[in-house]
Amino acid sequence: MKINVDGEERKFRSVWFEKDEVVLIEQRNLPEKIEFYRAKNSDDIAYAIKHMVVRGAPAIGVTAAYGLALAKIKGENMEEAVEKIRKTRPTAYDLFKAIDFMKSSGFDIHAAERYSQEVSGRCKKIGEYGNVLIADGSKILTHCNAGALAVVDWGTALAPMRYAKESGKNIFVFVDETRPRLQGAKLTAWELEQEGIDHAIIADNAAGYFMKKGDVNLAIVGADRICANGDFANKIGTYEKAVLAKENGIPFYVAAPGTTFDFNLKTGDEIPIEERDQEEVLVVNGKKIGPENSKARNPAFDVTPNRYVSGYITEYGIFRPDQLGDLKRKVQSDLFMRTTTPTA
Amino acid sequence: MKINVDGEERKFRSVWFEKDEVVLIEQRNLPEKIEFYRAKNSDDIAYAIKHMVVRGAPAIGVTAAYGLALAKIKGENMEEAVEKIRKTRPTAYDLFKAIDFMKSSGFDIHAAERYSQEVSGRCKKIGEYGNVLIADGSKILTHCNAGALAVVDWGTALAPMRYAKESGKNIFVFVDETRPRLQGAKLTAWELEQEGIDHAIIADNAAGYFMKKGDVNLAIVGADRICANGDFANKIGTYEKAVLAKENGIPFYVAAPGTTFDFNLKTGDEIPIEERDQEEVLVVNGKKIGPENSKARNPAFDVTPNRYVSGYITEYGIFRPDQLGDLKRKVQSDLFMRTTTPTA
Repeated sequence: MKINVDGEERKFRSVWFEKDEVVLIEQRNLPEKIEFYRAKNSDDIAYAIKHMVVRGAPAIGVTAAYGLALAKIKGENMEEAVEKIRKTRPTAYDLFKAIDFMKSSGFDIHAAERYSQEVSGRCKKIGEYGNVLIADGSKILTHCNAGALAVVDWGTALAPMRYAKESGKNIFVFVDETRPRLQGAKLTAWELEQEGIDHAIIADNAAGYFMKKGDVNLAIVGADRICANGDFANKIGTYEKAVLAKENGIPFYVAAPGTTFDFNLKTGDEIPIEERDQEEVLVVNGKKIGPENSKARNPAFDVTPNRYVSGYITEYGIFRPDQLGDLKRKVQSDLFMRTTTPTA
Repeated sequence: MKINVDGEERKFRSVWFEKDEVVLIEQRNLPEKIEFYRAKNSDDIAYAIKHMVVRGAPAIGVTAAYGLALAKIKGENMEEAVEKIRKTRPTAYDLFKAIDFMKSSGFDIHAAERYSQEVSGRCKKIGEYGNVLIADGSKILTHCNAGALAVVDWGTALAPMRYAKESGKNIFVFVDETRPRLQGAKLTAWELEQEGIDHAIIADNAAGYFMKKGDVNLAIVGADRICANGDFANKIGTYEKAVLAKENGIPFYVAAPGTTFDFNLKTGDEIPIEERDQEEVLVVNGKKIGPENSKARNPAFDVTPNRYVSGYITEYGIFRPDQLGDLKRKVQSDLFMRTTTPTA
């Protein structure tokens, strides 16, 4: 992804390996400051995932892959390192895929590099396929951040928009701010600004208004885990936007690489949903938003049933919910994916 | 409404007249500080409405009524005072009702007092009727603040909850935080805390999650303007919650006094929607949430079509959308309401 650092445009990935450290863009400080988090062992990696230095299902997977290679290089007890990283966050499937992949590859740093390259390359393909859905002049709604920061590069939901922009199409993006952690306002808007893509941040409450008004032509979101039937978990609020898109006849697409598909789960009811600290809702910019004693509930994800999804944009092409059997076969005959799916 | 001031429980209204001043609870400082805004002329009143010292359709109406009486007492040019107050905010109908009422009453302070009493008494009745819909143990979702602060006392959407609590029912309220201005987190949570009603603040994104999970039995919201066919304007995000309630089979009620019904408008397409400053979205607690150059769109209201509404809770009883003809007849034969509807 392009990042403007002190007036100079540079290319970055969200996570990489360098001199026995895993380096991550410190996403909690964006867009104010571009800083880097340097993980020196599996404890640092677990912290980075749990406390959302890095977030986004594919990026979490890549971080785990590098993290396990790092732990191996540092001579850590690998069983403990695996357990520590596995229990950081429950919803995103890529985390478990990456752990399995690294296990079956002996936690080798070259395997981690390959995992990262694969994820990045697959997201580039998502951009290529997804671009077909975007007409010149399209207004696209997206939720949370499913951009380069959430992957390694390119993004999932944002990849088709990057491709559309590069192919000369004029597009406009409605960016849901995405409370409670505001990844839309903080990360997606920032990525779009870096890429020069026209956009506006909106309160999550306003998405329905613009859809009903006819101002949204298409919605594309990412995913944290997609089940065999197409039900998928993604950032809280995705379900709301999907229902509203259907109600207003707006195509609603989910963009994700094969690593996010969990064919072991039949339906979304089986996806574990993380409920995070209520302070994420109650405190914004370091200050409480509500009364001193009020409590909050803070589910981090929701599950959107397959009936609200027009299609899944993957590195293998675009699939309707009723075509996911075909996708499953493609994933299972994909050498890289097979390595990452020892249980399939 | 009850407010705990320095450990002592006191009774307050959101706006009243005192010694040639209109006194308002400064709602922009809640819940941190309980302070009062003292309006000495129509300029102060116009500022208070435009900049949301006071908000909520019925409270805006009462403030306008007192404000015009104040202007009259101060010997202001009444044509100018009316114009100034009329153009403060375009969506809430009560503002225009109150202006018409005061015009036809010679801007008399006693007329303003009567207007305030009527609004308060009618909201008390909304509480009485609405209470019938609330079973013991109910979990109720509400959006924005339609409490005592938005009226004079009692509230509209919150009035049935106050009644339910007082009649010994055990209830729980999911409070949408209501971005961008967070009136749910700041005002509704604060009112519920004062009344000892159990609740949790949630990100607006999480309402659909809890509805789909079966955790919400009932939704009640207020309104800024309701058309003859039942389409209604309310705080941005209301439309989203209404669609989600219908999708999940959850009864969705609108609570409002007769002063909020604009029978001159056939459908919601005719309601003017205010778009407010983008800074309301971009700045929270005094600090920017997004990148320096990103823009925002900030519609303050949306329109919910009548097909999503189970019923309208009014001072005349509860009406389904197809019964609004009956309501119209009741309003038109109501002496107070007739005075306020010279155009009907």
